[in-house]
Amino acid sequence: MSDRLTRQITFLSEADKLKSVMRASRLHDASRFENSAEHSWHVMLYAFVLADQAGPEVQIDRVIKMLLLHDMVEIDAGDNPIHGQVDADAMAAEEQAAADRIFGLLPADQAQHFRALWDEFEAAETPDAIFAKSIDRVQTPIGNLANGGGSWTEYNVTFDQLEARVGTPVKRGAPGLWTWLLPQLRRFFTL
Amino acid sequence: MSDRLTRQITFLSEADKLKSVMRASRLHDASRFENSAEHSWHVMLYAFVLADQAGPEVQIDRVIKMLLLHDMVEIDAGDNPIHGQVDADAMAAEEQAAADRIFGLLPADQAQHFRALWDEFEAAETPDAIFAKSIDRVQTPIGNLANGGGSWTEYNVTFDQLEARVGTPVKRGAPGLWTWLLPQLRRFFTL
Ligand SMILES: [Ca+2]
Repeated sequence: MSDRLTRQITFLSEADKLKSVMRASRLHDASRFENSAEHSWHVMLYAFVLADQAGPEVQIDRVIKMLLLHDMVEIDAGDNPIHGQVDADAMAAEEQAAADRIFGLLPADQAQHFRALWDEFEAAETPDAIFAKSIDRVQTPIGNLANGGGSWTEYNVTFDQLEARVGTPVKRGAPGLWTWLLPQLRRFFTL
Repeated sequence: MSDRLTRQITFLSEADKLKSVMRASRLHDASRFENSAEHSWHVMLYAFVLADQAGPEVQIDRVIKMLLLHDMVEIDAGDNPIHGQVDADAMAAEEQAAADRIFGLLPADQAQHFRALWDEFEAAETPDAIFAKSIDRVQTPIGNLANGGGSWTEYNVTFDQLEARVGTPVKRGAPGLWTWLLPQLRRFFTL
């Protein structure tokens, strides 16, 4: 038991590093960039509040736990902004290695359980993962609208790029949210 | 529906401010103080990983949601360090007013649901809330051990104060965790 607890606390202490992984997005007041730990908290709150945007087959408690873990690989692999230039294969390999190492710190049963949840999120095929992905994608645009453009301005994002990179997953998992957001996005990108 | 969603997004945007509420505790690498949003993420991860420290009557999914909301009142009331000097009645009144305002941004059914979860956490009487409180209290000591003292040093905390303020709730909700932590705390405070 004591060895089990030692492994668990080792994992939890390693997790502290996610607070130092910086994202391309800023806080709503634009005062600084957001880190991946506080982003994870925020998207979990999004999932809980916006649960009625999910289909009846979605289990919100599982979605919340997926979002709790979804960015942990960034401790090793860093955040890859969706509007940045990325070698997708290299990034996927780096994230797989990160998942091996980080979830591997846990006792074997938990390592397997957590890894399976993360794999499910990444694959984006189950209803829970599809909804989790849509929630993960919708937080930044809402922040960018609040802070005057944020990562859109920094990455010279066009409306068409936004529709492809954000609209596609949001429409898939939470279509009502995209319908609500679209006129606001159009207004911003027309200005 | 659209008005409901507008209220929900207003609440979620207000929540962004929790990322700017600073705590007395530091990151494990001591590089800076921790904010209440990333702290909330971290304690949810603690609850998920350390679920086997809870009694069989504890529902971890409810604990995680309590911890997701537990510090939101700090947007108005600020963080009150447990080792600081506080007027407990004034603080409770301030936090009640904050809960009224912040949860009140939500649609009425959710405002009531979220407020009830937060009230349950605060009252610390149900098994879920007792476990959530113990998890909330145990994260900072583990960080302080990692960063060489942190808030203990800044507040001149003694071992007896720590045992009263942290040991009491941790023993109540997660006694195995306190048994594991105690020798490490004794070693630190003897040095
Ligand atoms: Ca607190």
